Amino acid sequence: MATISQEELDGIYAFAVELGKQAGQMLMDAAQVRIDGGIARSEEKEHVQKENAVDLVTETDENVEAFIKHQIAEKYPQHKFVGEESYSKGASRDYLIDDSPTWCVDPLDGTVNYIHLFPMFCVSIGFIHNNKPLIGVINAPFLKQFFSSCAGRGAFMNETQRLPLIQKPIPAMPKNAPSGCVFSCEWGKDRRDIPDGNLHRKIESFVNMAAELGGRSGRGGMVHGVRSLGSATLDLAYVAMGAFDIWWEGGCWEWDVAAGIAILQEAGGLITTADPPRDEATAPIEDVRLGSRLYLAIRPAGSLGEETGRQGQERTVREVWRRVRNLDYSRPGA
Amino acid sequence: MATISQEELDGIYAFAVELGKQAGQMLMDAAQVRIDGGIARSEEKEHVQKENAVDLVTETDENVEAFIKHQIAEKYPQHKFVGEESYSKGASRDYLIDDSPTWCVDPLDGTVNYIHLFPMFCVSIGFIHNNKPLIGVINAPFLKQFFSSCAGRGAFMNETQRLPLIQKPIPAMPKNAPSGCVFSCEWGKDRRDIPDGNLHRKIESFVNMAAELGGRSGRGGMVHGVRSLGSATLDLAYVAMGAFDIWWEGGCWEWDVAAGIAILQEAGGLITTADPPRDEATAPIEDVRLGSRLYLAIRPAGSLGEETGRQGQERTVREVWRRVRNLDYSRPGA
Repeated sequence: MATISQEELDGIYAFAVELGKQAGQMLMDAAQVRIDGGIARSEEKEHVQKENAVDLVTETDENVEAFIKHQIAEKYPQHKFVGEESYSKGASRDYLIDDSPTWCVDPLDGTVNYIHLFPMFCVSIGFIHNNKPLIGVINAPFLKQFFSSCAGRGAFMNETQRLPLIQKPIPAMPKNAPSGCVFSCEWGKDRRDIPDGNLHRKIESFVNMAAELGGRSGRGGMVHGVRSLGSATLDLAYVAMGAFDIWWEGGCWEWDVAAGIAILQEAGGLITTADPPRDEATAPIEDVRLGSRLYLAIRPAGSLGEETGRQGQERTVREVWRRVRNLDYSRPGA
Repeated sequence: MATISQEELDGIYAFAVELGKQAGQMLMDAAQVRIDGGIARSEEKEHVQKENAVDLVTETDENVEAFIKHQIAEKYPQHKFVGEESYSKGASRDYLIDDSPTWCVDPLDGTVNYIHLFPMFCVSIGFIHNNKPLIGVINAPFLKQFFSSCAGRGAFMNETQRLPLIQKPIPAMPKNAPSGCVFSCEWGKDRRDIPDGNLHRKIESFVNMAAELGGRSGRGGMVHGVRSLGSATLDLAYVAMGAFDIWWEGGCWEWDVAAGIAILQEAGGLITTADPPRDEATAPIEDVRLGSRLYLAIRPAGSLGEETGRQGQERTVREVWRRVRNLDYSRPGA
């Protein structure tokens, strides 16, 4: 198992930041073509509008991934590369990340948002070594929000503002969490109307988190707000920022979360499994496995009386586990 | 019933835009104080963090409303003013807007987001005459997104970019809407776990919109995405932008939507009632009553073959009505 020095890591970080800026600009340039009427000029207006938008977006997605992959191969030919686009075209759904230095990239997260030009989209670039996300770069160019982190160097918004945003002091988790928390969750793509299927289990979990205290047979969490952005990557960035307190999700993939996990952990957040264990009140709370497709993230937290920040986060994890259902997003090799 | 000339309206618009910029800056300045540790410096850290944040936000909310109200009273002493903060403190829940020139203002929409420093918050300034929202200004300073419109002058983002964003041509509503649509909805504050209460009716409606086609006994809408931002005002701005296709909501108030309705309608969007009429397939589709607390907005739409944009919007309204429940947000005097 090779080691990477902090100096080497700093160089990789600087490269990743530059890469994220260039890739974000590519996304924004392609969006501008659509705003400026690129579709209309090249095609007939009727029946093809939506299909055209989707085709153009797929093309952009592929172009940005190819660009990032090429840049990395030039600079770090010995590093592995796992990208959303190339993975999706392959036959395997195995988890491909091992101990090697590996880039895990989503050229465009929030694809549906990008198709509709809702600003919550981004490029996500993670660098992983020994199975640990060490560097994260998330660029949301339409929002002009750029998130980045490097292990040992802190996590930042727009390169200057340390995450979480409120530092003096970092707020503790609310005493009655999840009450008082902003809860972020996604409806996802699995919309099958199967009794006790993933869609219905998700909804049941969301409603438990949202309902009044005492409601739902004691499971009501009365969260302060429920948010769905349509981007797992930005959900994680906002948890790292402290804007969201809790993110709970099943079904997304390692490239959706690799950069976000790096940023969240460097900011002091916690990420574990979405899947409540049987002994939810006492089970050890371990870092999530990157390829597990089941994620529960808690924002960076300060202490509260005798309770450390970590203890407050763990208390919140258990309160979430008590209210959510197990989801079924199995995969081979994970 | 007095009339207002276009020239006079243009002057009011310029004033409203300036007011929106100043108010947005006040929100951002107050957020910066919290980021810089204003809470920690003035108070003990323990148990008061959240309460402090809420108190500070309430203070900001009141300050911004007082500022806007004062500026308007100086410039247009003959105009009426309805603001969220002053209204909420009053005993009446009556609808107070009549034919008079009236400003309808929410100094801070997305209060929960602002408390948590999630960027989806804004100030909302609407100008209404003869019960019609004529001018809208929405400033989301953390997002650096500024939306504005004046009847007869168009709707804009950041003062230069016409809404909807895609103009050449404006995309038609999808053929199988709500399939292909981004659906925006909010969980709101009413979380009472009452069988067939508003929370459960909302959830049932959301799930109908989201589930696969053919699911939910034929009500499945298979929307492209479900989004919840926690700001009715920004939901409307994104519908005007074309980023959201459909927004369906019950429970918010006239100051949450007055500016957004002005912008949406000027951009070519449609807004009617969230409440499905009994004859949903044939009922006339009328502009929403501002104080009705039940809103269904459809984005600006272009034509598709023989179908006009308006016809596509109305087709979408009926498809939404077919999938949603009636909500109970009655009020006196509406």
